[in-house]
Amino acid sequence: MNIFLNDYNDLCHEKVFAKLQEVNAKGNIGYGNDEYTQKAKELIKSDFENDDLQIEFLAGGTIANIIAISANLLPYEGIIAASSGHIVGHETGSIEATGHRVELIETKDGKLSKELLVNRLKDFTDEYHIVPKLVYISQTTELGTVYSYEELKDIYETCLEYGMYLYIDGARMAVGLAASDLEVYDLPDLCDIFTMGATKNGALYGEALVVVEDELKQNLRNFMRQRGSVMAKGFVTGAEFIALFEDGLYYELGKIAYDMSVYLAEELKKANVVFNQVPVSNQIFIELSDKNIEKLKENNAFEIQPLDDENKVVRFVTSYRTTKEEIDSLVEDIRSLEA
Amino acid sequence: MNIFLNDYNDLCHEKVFAKLQEVNAKGNIGYGNDEYTQKAKELIKSDFENDDLQIEFLAGGTIANIIAISANLLPYEGIIAASSGHIVGHETGSIEATGHRVELIETKDGKLSKELLVNRLKDFTDEYHIVPKLVYISQTTELGTVYSYEELKDIYETCLEYGMYLYIDGARMAVGLAASDLEVYDLPDLCDIFTMGATKNGALYGEALVVVEDELKQNLRNFMRQRGSVMAKGFVTGAEFIALFEDGLYYELGKIAYDMSVYLAEELKKANVVFNQVPVSNQIFIELSDKNIEKLKENNAFEIQPLDDENKVVRFVTSYRTTKEEIDSLVEDIRSLEA
Amino acid sequence: MNIFLNDYNDLCHEKVFAKLQEVNAKGNIGYGNDEYTQKAKELIKSDFENDDLQIEFLAGGTIANIIAISANLLPYEGIIAASSGHIVGHETGSIEATGHRVELIETKDGKLSKELLVNRLKDFTDEYHIVPKLVYISQTTELGTVYSYEELKDIYETCLEYGMYLYIDGARMAVGLAASDLEVYDLPDLCDIFTMGATKNGALYGEALVVVEDELKQNLRNFMRQRGSVMAKGFVTGAEFIALFEDGLYYELGKIAYDMSVYLAEELKKANVVFNQVPVSNQIFIELSDKNIEKLKENNAFEIQPLDDENKVVRFVTSYRTTKEEIDSLVEDIRSLEA
Amino acid sequence: MNIFLNDYNDLCHEKVFAKLQEVNAKGNIGYGNDEYTQKAKELIKSDFENDDLQIEFLAGGTIANIIAISANLLPYEGIIAASSGHIVGHETGSIEATGHRVELIETKDGKLSKELLVNRLKDFTDEYHIVPKLVYISQTTELGTVYSYEELKDIYETCLEYGMYLYIDGARMAVGLAASDLEVYDLPDLCDIFTMGATKNGALYGEALVVVEDELKQNLRNFMRQRGSVMAKGFVTGAEFIALFEDGLYYELGKIAYDMSVYLAEELKKANVVFNQVPVSNQIFIELSDKNIEKLKENNAFEIQPLDDENKVVRFVTSYRTTKEEIDSLVEDIRSLEA
Repeated sequence: MNIFLNDYNDLCHEKVFAKLQEVNAKGNIGYGNDEYTQKAKELIKSDFENDDLQIEFLAGGTIANIIAISANLLPYEGIIAASSGHIVGHETGSIEATGHRVELIETKDGKLSKELLVNRLKDFTDEYHIVPKLVYISQTTELGTVYSYEELKDIYETCLEYGMYLYIDGARMAVGLAASDLEVYDLPDLCDIFTMGATKNGALYGEALVVVEDELKQNLRNFMRQRGSVMAKGFVTGAEFIALFEDGLYYELGKIAYDMSVYLAEELKKANVVFNQVPVSNQIFIELSDKNIEKLKENNAFEIQPLDDENKVVRFVTSYRTTKEEIDSLVEDIRSLEA
Repeated sequence: MNIFLNDYNDLCHEKVFAKLQEVNAKGNIGYGNDEYTQKAKELIKSDFENDDLQIEFLAGGTIANIIAISANLLPYEGIIAASSGHIVGHETGSIEATGHRVELIETKDGKLSKELLVNRLKDFTDEYHIVPKLVYISQTTELGTVYSYEELKDIYETCLEYGMYLYIDGARMAVGLAASDLEVYDLPDLCDIFTMGATKNGALYGEALVVVEDELKQNLRNFMRQRGSVMAKGFVTGAEFIALFEDGLYYELGKIAYDMSVYLAEELKKANVVFNQVPVSNQIFIELSDKNIEKLKENNAFEIQPLDDENKVVRFVTSYRTTKEEIDSLVEDIRSLEA
Repeated sequence: MNIFLNDYNDLCHEKVFAKLQEVNAKGNIGYGNDEYTQKAKELIKSDFENDDLQIEFLAGGTIANIIAISANLLPYEGIIAASSGHIVGHETGSIEATGHRVELIETKDGKLSKELLVNRLKDFTDEYHIVPKLVYISQTTELGTVYSYEELKDIYETCLEYGMYLYIDGARMAVGLAASDLEVYDLPDLCDIFTMGATKNGALYGEALVVVEDELKQNLRNFMRQRGSVMAKGFVTGAEFIALFEDGLYYELGKIAYDMSVYLAEELKKANVVFNQVPVSNQIFIELSDKNIEKLKENNAFEIQPLDDENKVVRFVTSYRTTKEEIDSLVEDIRSLEA
Repeated sequence: MNIFLNDYNDLCHEKVFAKLQEVNAKGNIGYGNDEYTQKAKELIKSDFENDDLQIEFLAGGTIANIIAISANLLPYEGIIAASSGHIVGHETGSIEATGHRVELIETKDGKLSKELLVNRLKDFTDEYHIVPKLVYISQTTELGTVYSYEELKDIYETCLEYGMYLYIDGARMAVGLAASDLEVYDLPDLCDIFTMGATKNGALYGEALVVVEDELKQNLRNFMRQRGSVMAKGFVTGAEFIALFEDGLYYELGKIAYDMSVYLAEELKKANVVFNQVPVSNQIFIELSDKNIEKLKENNAFEIQPLDDENKVVRFVTSYRTTKEEIDSLVEDIRSLEA
C-alpha cells in the first residue's frame, strides 16, 4: 500500500524515539519545569535569534489553536478567518465553544490578503457586531497553498493598523518553510503568535507554541492549565523537541516532505491529471471520478472530499516517510485509470 | 536523592516503551481509529467484564476531568465536590470555565458520603440555585484517603436517587484498587463514568476514560474533538494501554506503589512522626517544622503545603519506581531531625 | 416628520399604560409569581387553546433569543439559521457567546425550507462537526418575508425527523399573523418554542416566550435567573400582557401595522420604486441613490442599509402608530425625487 | 397586611409614572440613543460632579452584575467575593456561567476588608489557580450591613495595589448612602465601576451602571448587546431616571426607607427581639421560633431564612412605601408572641 493518507500516520522519527530513551528514568520535574523542556525552548529561541519569545509545548493542533486564539480575547471580541480555515471546518466548533464568533472571508485559494481583510473589516463598525481582534491564518493553508514573506508582511501590517493580533497556525510549518521564501527567523517579525507543529513532522505528538507579543504572554500558563493542556510529564515533549531542533531535524523533515511533493506534482502533471488546486506544498488535490477512486484505493491510501455528483477531490499528502517508489507506483496506478 | 516528589516523575515503564517500538513505522490510521487503540479498548473492557462500556483515551488528568464532567451538562446544571477535591484547588478554574458552578462540601478526610450529600442537596431547591447534576469524587482522594466498596455503593445510590451522575476521577485508580476492597470489575457498577489514570502509573502520558451510562456516550467524540482532546496519533496511546493491560501491568504497578507506601507508613510510625492524615495510600502527609524541612530537602525530594506559621505539611508519594532503600534513607534522615 | 424608522419608537399603547395604573401600589409578589403575571399567562394559553404551554415574560428580543436557543443545548450542539437571520447579523455574537456555533444557510428571501435544511444537514455527519440541534427562524423574517402554514409545517416535520428543535423568533409575530394564513392557535403545532413579541407591538417592553416541548420546560426558570432575565417586578410585564391579550389588542395592533404596510406597498408600486424585496409585511425595502436618500431624509425617518457604491437599500417600517397621512406624504416625497 | 416583604413590591413612585406620560408617543430613537436617556445620564453625572463617567441603564440587578463583572475579564481571571454575597447565593451560578470562578471569603457581617483581602490573595500565587482580577462587594450588603467611607477607601486601595478592579453592587445604593457617611460624589473615587439601583427605589425597573475606569468602558456597549441587556425602548428607562434624579427623588426615597428602618429597629429593640445581625439599614434580621413565625405571618409579609431546627431568621425590609402605622402594627404583633 502506498501511503498518501496524511502526514501523521508515522510513529515518529528514529532520532525522536532515541532521545526519549535518554530521559532520566525517574526524578524528572513535572509540568514543563524540567531540564529537557528548558533546553528545547532555548534551541528554538536560538533558531529564531530571539530570546524574548515565550515557548510552550502542547499535545496537538486543536488545543494549540484554542490556546493561541482565545487566551487573550474579551467576550465581545471575535476572530477573522478564511471560510476554508481549519478552525472553521474541522474542529467541531472549538472556537465558538470558547464564546467567540469566527467571522468568515470567502477566498479562492484559502489565503487571506490585506485587501480581503480591509474590505471585511468594514462590516464591524456597529455595537451590534463583535469587535474583530484576532486574524487566523495557517502556513500551509487547508488547501495546500503557501504565504510568501511579502504576503504575510502585508497581512500583519494590516492587523497592526487595526489593532488586531495575527496568529499563524503552523501545524505544517516545517513544509511551509520549505515551500516558501520564508526563513524561520522571519516568523517572529510577521505575527504575534504562531505554532511550529511537530505531530505532522516527526514527533510522537506535540506542537510548539511561540508567543511574540508581550500581551499574549501574560498568565498564558494559567490559561493552559485551565484548559487541561499542560502535560504532567512535560519532559517527554521537551525531549522530543530537543531531537527535532538540536541538529535541524525539524527543517530537514519538512524539506523531505516538500521535495517529495514537488516530485509528485511533476509526475501528476505529466500524467495529465485535473488539479483542484495548483500544487505548491505537501497536500495535493486532484479530481477523479468515483469509479476511478474505487480502483485507486486498492493499492493507495488517501483522503477523499466531496466535489459533485460523479467526481470527488482526492488529497495526496507527502511526508518525510514518503518514498519515490510510492510516488512512482501511485502515478502508474493513476495512468492506468480510464479517462 | 530519594524521590518522593510525586508519581509522575518517571519517563515510563520499560514494557510501555518497548510496546511503542512495535507500532508500525507508517500507515497508521489517525484519531484513535487504529488497530492498537481498538485492541487496548478490548483489553480494558475484558477486565471490566463489560462490553457495553465506551473507552476513550485522553492525554492528561485535567482534560479528562473537563471531558468527563462537562460533556453532558446543561448550562444551569452544576457539580458537587469535596472542597479539597482536585478540580477545586488545582485546575485553575477549569470546570467553571465550562460555565458550570462547583458546589462544595467540607470534609475532614477528603471523602464525600451519602450523609454529606443528602444534607448538602437541601440547599438546591430554589430557582436561584443551580441544579446539581454531577457528583465528583476521586479514588484515591487528594488527601490520600480511599473509598471502600460500600462507601461508593452508598454514594452512587444517592446519586441515582437524586438524578445525578457520579464521576470517579481515577488519576490514581491503580493505587486506589490496591489500597481498597474494590475489584476492578466493580467499578462500572459503582458510577456512571470514571478514569483509569496511567500518567501516574507507568505511561508516557494517558488516561483511559470509561463511560458506563449511555446518556454520557452520546456524541462524546464530538465533544472531545471540540475541546482539542483527541490525539491525531491515537495509536501511540493505544499501544501504551496495550502494554499496561495485556498482562496486568497496570495493576502490578499500582500494587508496588501501594506496598511501598505501606512500608513507608510503618517506618514513619516507628519514627514517631506527626501524621497530618492517617496514611492509607501512596500519598502520605506528615507535619514538620520549616527548619527540619530545609534539612530534609538536602537529600530527599517531596512537596510542601502550608500549615501554620512555623510548620508545614510534607507530602511523600511512592510509585512503582520507589525502592526500599529510598524509604530507609528517608526515614533515617527524618529520625536524625531535631524534635 | 413621517416616522418609518422602526416599530419600537412609540412609548406604548394607551391601554397598556392604563393597565399599569391598575397595579397595586405595593405588596406585589416578585419575580413573576404575582396575580397579574398569572392572569396574563392564562389569557395567552387560552388564545392557544392549550393549557400545557409554559409561558415566560422577558424584557427584550435578544435575551429572549438567548434563553430560547441555548437553555437546552449541550456544548457540542449547534444552531442552523439563515445567513440573514437576526441572531446572525444583529446581536453581537450573542449565541456564540453561549458557546454554540451557528451554522448558516444562504437564502434568497431570508426563509429556510425543508429542501434547504435537508441539503445542509448532509454536512454534519462527522465527529469534527457540531451536532445540529436547533433550527432558528423568525416570523416575519429579517427581510420582511413571511412563512405560510404549509411552509412551517414542512420545516417542523424536517426538524422532528432529524431530532432538532424548531424555534420561531416572533419579535414581529403580531404582523406575522396578520400577513400570513396562520392562526394564532396553529403556532404550538408548528414548533417547539416561540416568542410573541410585544416591544414592537404596543408594550413598554416585553416578549412572551411560549414553550411547547416538555424537554425545553425543564429548569427553564433556573436558566432565566442565571442569565439575568427574570424581572424583579414581573407584575409590570404581567399587567402589560393582560392589556394586550384580554381584548385581542395584540392582534388588532398587528393588523393595523400590516394594513398600513399593504397601503404603503401599493402606493410605492404606483410610484414605480425599485423594491429590494417583494413587500409582504411591515418592513418594506426599496433601492435609492445616495443623493435621493439625503433629500428624502429631510422629512422622513427610516433606516438605511448598504447596497452598492452609489445606491442604498432604504427600509420603511409601519406600525400601529403609522397614519395614512404619513404614507401619502412619504410617497409624495418619493415621487418628487429625481430618477 | 403590613408589607415588610422586600423593597420591590411597589409599582413605582408617582413621579416616575408621571414622567413616562411625558415621553413622545412616537418617533423616539431606539437603544438608548434618545434625548431622555441623554438627559438622565447628564443628571447623574452632574450629581457625581464627574463628566468622564460612562452611564448605562440596565433592566435588573442580575444582568447588571453580569455586565459589570465579566465585560473585561480574560478567561483565566476570577472574582473575589464574600461567601454571603448576592452573586454567590442568589443568582443561579450567573457569574460561573460567564466562565469565571468566584473565590470566596468567609465574613461575620458580610463585609470584606483590606485585611481579609490581603490574606486571601496569598492563595493565588501559582499557575494552577485563577488570577484574581475583580473584587465584588455591595452597598448595602446581603446581611444589611453598610460600608463606611474609610472602609471602602481601604478596600479600593488594596484593589489598586494588587491590580484588581473594585465593583460595588448598588442594588440598594440609595439606602446605602442614607445609612453611611458616604456622599454620592464620593463613589467614583472609591471604585472602578458601580451601580445605582432603582428597581428597589421607586422605578418600574432599572439600574444605572456607572463606569469610572477607562479600561472598563471599552466596547462595553458591544458586550451589553451580546448579553441581550440593551433595551430597544431605552427612552422608557431614560425617562424613569430623569424623574429619579432631576429633583433628588432617588436620594429622598432612600432616606425614607432608611428612616423607617431606624424607627423599626428602635421599636424592635424595645420589644427585646433577638437580632441576627445588628440593624443598620433597611434589611433587619431577627430570630423567631417556627411557631411564632406562623402566627406573625397572619398579618405581616416578610421573608424567612433557615437557622436551626426550631427557629428561623426573619427579614423585615422597609421601603419608601413603608408607614409608621405598619411598623407599629408589626411590633405590636411581635410583642404579643409567646416567649
